[in-house]
Amino acid sequence: MRWPLTRVGKAHRAPSVGFMQPWNFLVVGSPADKPRVHDVFRTAEAEGLSPDDRRALYSRMKPQEILELPINQCITCDRSRSGPVVLGRTHMLSMGLYSSVCAVQNLWLAARAEGLGVGWVSIFEQQALQDALGIPHDIVPIACLCVGWVSHFNNRPELETCGWLPRLPLAELLHYEQWGSTMRTSPDEALTAAACAQRPRTTAFHRRPGSTCPPA
Amino acid sequence: MRWPLTRVGKAHRAPSVGFMQPWNFLVVGSPADKPRVHDVFRTAEAEGLSPDDRRALYSRMKPQEILELPINQCITCDRSRSGPVVLGRTHMLSMGLYSSVCAVQNLWLAARAEGLGVGWVSIFEQQALQDALGIPHDIVPIACLCVGWVSHFNNRPELETCGWLPRLPLAELLHYEQWGSTMRTSPDEALTAAACAQRPRTTAFHRRPGSTCPPA
Repeated sequence: MRWPLTRVGKAHRAPSVGFMQPWNFLVVGSPADKPRVHDVFRTAEAEGLSPDDRRALYSRMKPQEILELPINQCITCDRSRSGPVVLGRTHMLSMGLYSSVCAVQNLWLAARAEGLGVGWVSIFEQQALQDALGIPHDIVPIACLCVGWVSHFNNRPELETCGWLPRLPLAELLHYEQWGSTMRTSPDEALTAAACAQRPRTTAFHRRPGSTCPPA
Repeated sequence: MRWPLTRVGKAHRAPSVGFMQPWNFLVVGSPADKPRVHDVFRTAEAEGLSPDDRRALYSRMKPQEILELPINQCITCDRSRSGPVVLGRTHMLSMGLYSSVCAVQNLWLAARAEGLGVGWVSIFEQQALQDALGIPHDIVPIACLCVGWVSHFNNRPELETCGWLPRLPLAELLHYEQWGSTMRTSPDEALTAAACAQRPRTTAFHRRPGSTCPPA
């Protein structure tokens, strides 16, 4: 059985702007190497957290899994991958970075589907992390993921249950047609109607089971 | 049946740094509003593509789905969401943007699981898109997704099959312990050994079916 290469392979199947596949996967798993990552985290943690009323809360819940969990999976972005012209990146230069994040989320979901826990540690000073892992300074570390088996999964995010922040109501995050506007008619009905107005693009068009379109 | 709110709900369940949930979801579905998005795309497209030998290739394959498909789903990032102190963003200021990309990828996979096609259009000038949709200039448009039923799904990305770029071999993207190093022993064996050295963290620890660890 292959582990974690099957999982990394799923990350490699993520969509990327202009098919540039800007990611690399740096796996840190040895007891000799994980402390270097942990040291960078510890330094940033000590520097970065300003004293405020949430410090006590943070100290109760912060995960220390860089050392405990078997795998640190660093996913990076090489912004020069595939040359200077990248289809779809001309106007949005961040699209390379965003593509690597799609790989992160694919890896996360693939791991979760196998019963593995994933934590994204972002308390790092970029250059210190690059130096600790030998990553060239023009390669952007996107995510350091701690991966391992866990005793259980929470039904809700830890930061929600501990009172750090509430889950925002979805309705407050939705806009229709223009920023700030809500539909007077039921959005579901209107959008279903819009979707059903879509014409099949080929004669081989198939409606899927569970389609919300009424039969033609 | 609810559409697309169930799907947007899955995007809203994405992980976010410090649980800041920085996203908004702007759904553009009416025939009156989609042309505004299309105009912004057309302007950027005309300005951005420099003449080169790939232009002919691009012109053959580019999707014009902003008008054809029923839904344009714009996902944004409010970098000030949840206040100035965001747990895990102090050292990596892009983590808010990255969180919104996790929502994009969740939406994409959720749509795909329902048999819907998704295309991420990134040929936009940011301010023109903000103005077309009334998005405040401090809100970052992350993705404009064209969503709709499609005749079929390709087994490989279109940019691969048309010869734009090849799929990179996964082995060339992998590093172990340090950037640039490959393992001499089988990485699968070594990493499985590292994972199996992980001790259960609670007495309720469960091994999952399919675990690569041998029985204790």
